[in-house]
Amino acid sequence: MNEQWLLAARPVGLPKESDFTWRRAEQEEPGAGQFRVRSIYLSLDPAMRGWMARDSYQPAVAIGAVMRGIGVGVVDASNHTDFAVGALVQGMLGWQTYCISDGKGMSKLPALPVPLDAWLGLLGHIGLTAYFGLLEIGQPKAGETLVVSAAAGAVGSVVGQIGKIKGCRVVGIAGSGEKCRWITEELGFDAAINYKAENLHQALKRECPGGIDIYFENVGGKTLETVLNHMNNFSRIPVCGMISGYNQTELEPGPGNLFQVIVHRVKMQGFIVTDFMSQARGAVAELAGWYAAGSLKYRVDVTKGLENAPAALLKLFDGTNQGKMLVQVSEEN
Amino acid sequence: MNEQWLLAARPVGLPKESDFTWRRAEQEEPGAGQFRVRSIYLSLDPAMRGWMARDSYQPAVAIGAVMRGIGVGVVDASNHTDFAVGALVQGMLGWQTYCISDGKGMSKLPALPVPLDAWLGLLGHIGLTAYFGLLEIGQPKAGETLVVSAAAGAVGSVVGQIGKIKGCRVVGIAGSGEKCRWITEELGFDAAINYKAENLHQALKRECPGGIDIYFENVGGKTLETVLNHMNNFSRIPVCGMISGYNQTELEPGPGNLFQVIVHRVKMQGFIVTDFMSQARGAVAELAGWYAAGSLKYRVDVTKGLENAPAALLKLFDGTNQGKMLVQVSEEN
Repeated sequence: MNEQWLLAARPVGLPKESDFTWRRAEQEEPGAGQFRVRSIYLSLDPAMRGWMARDSYQPAVAIGAVMRGIGVGVVDASNHTDFAVGALVQGMLGWQTYCISDGKGMSKLPALPVPLDAWLGLLGHIGLTAYFGLLEIGQPKAGETLVVSAAAGAVGSVVGQIGKIKGCRVVGIAGSGEKCRWITEELGFDAAINYKAENLHQALKRECPGGIDIYFENVGGKTLETVLNHMNNFSRIPVCGMISGYNQTELEPGPGNLFQVIVHRVKMQGFIVTDFMSQARGAVAELAGWYAAGSLKYRVDVTKGLENAPAALLKLFDGTNQGKMLVQVSEEN
Repeated sequence: MNEQWLLAARPVGLPKESDFTWRRAEQEEPGAGQFRVRSIYLSLDPAMRGWMARDSYQPAVAIGAVMRGIGVGVVDASNHTDFAVGALVQGMLGWQTYCISDGKGMSKLPALPVPLDAWLGLLGHIGLTAYFGLLEIGQPKAGETLVVSAAAGAVGSVVGQIGKIKGCRVVGIAGSGEKCRWITEELGFDAAINYKAENLHQALKRECPGGIDIYFENVGGKTLETVLNHMNNFSRIPVCGMISGYNQTELEPGPGNLFQVIVHRVKMQGFIVTDFMSQARGAVAELAGWYAAGSLKYRVDVTKGLENAPAALLKLFDGTNQGKMLVQVSEEN
């Protein structure tokens, strides 16, 4: 059988389990030029809220369709010359135990000495988002001050570590003492601010006495407004996400002090990792090298069983996840 | 006598005449290495509200000091080898009939076949703001769609005309039918939207069916929010001003849809014309060339008499000015 989660309803506010329908479908065999993938790990990402809700940089998931999701898996049946049985692949596997593919959008994983789940994190869209957003848009220079919001999150934790590799002073904003300890003691951030425990403006004054040169934006809303008052002249804001607004049923007001981008000649620039795919090979090699050298760490928060995917998705939005959220759909071998 | 307007109070909401004090001071003679300038035209600019109110990219005008202002004038007494009597100069003359200078921040006007007031408009900070903001940050390409807010204003009207020179489709947003007629019929904009007479979202759909590639931002607030929903992928927003918020006593909420900068990979970048001064000579020559060729027009709104400067400043904020606002302090010769 192929077990699947279908999108049943567009979310209103936070996604909930009733937005999905569980289905056990007949197992399909691959046709000519096709192959079948057994899903092993599925990635859960904040962007999924948008995919459920509305057309954007890609169309919304149709009601009644298998929920969209990127994953890694293994080819278990094949009529395709490039994808042999046993090959490890990555692509839009969807929220299901098996998928049929003609190879479009599917890539074989190169043999690098990393755990399989790293392809959904450090070497996948997470690591590449951090890499390109910080390096291409943030343009960090040694000695500059980098502030990262959602700093204990999947992307944020990698951004901060790359910032350290590039010689920046790195300050993370996170929502618990545990997260703050992790990013400073384990990941080497210079400082962390628990925005739930202290006043962000005062904390930024303390931790960024020379102002902020790069703000890696994952949050939006009031956090952005506060940070804008600390930006240096000619500073950069790679805009990666604005999770604070994703589950609001009405638009959250934006920062009231956007004129600071004029006063300080700030560059705010949105980006999507797929725009950089032509440069991905070199980035993956560099990220894998940093990982092997021990200067890049990450952690995964694995939920076992596809049936738990909707509940796991919610953890992304209530702040209780610790590291990159994955669902393990089947065993690695 | 030297007649002066001093800053008497920080503005609350709109600037008003009582924020200034009129003074008739003794005429000063230039000391060693100094010269005296008789002011001819003073420029009135939206940024003056900020100069009156708070420290920013330059310190606020001190209470009791002569109000800051850029102007053109003629040297009428000199002990300075580089600035002879009769030389036409430009600089921070302030709101006064005469000023004493040691030459710092003061420049002699080159002999170009343009009216004297053009140095405060087309060839001054207005023209250069339009030039560098559009060309350096907006990066227009032929065939792209450029939208300009405050399009009948001093900067906006030049931006649109340079956009036409560069081969863009140019759509202006302005606040009266007369302004809309002027920018389309006299200045050659392709279309104009009177935001007070029709729904901006619907009008942008009609006038920008292929979306917006460059939005030259003078306004902020709700206009920015509406325009953001029409931005194309990889579009640019040079942020020149956000006049809608300048006289608010409380911060106006920013756009609630800033996540559009991610969806469409928008670059928003603030700038200040003084950052580009090293490139000003070439820009002035190019602007003067376009003016001589008839492809760049401008109009000035001249108020006679320094005593009327505070009242004239208000016209900037109530939308009744027509073209670059100047105060004529004395005759040209």
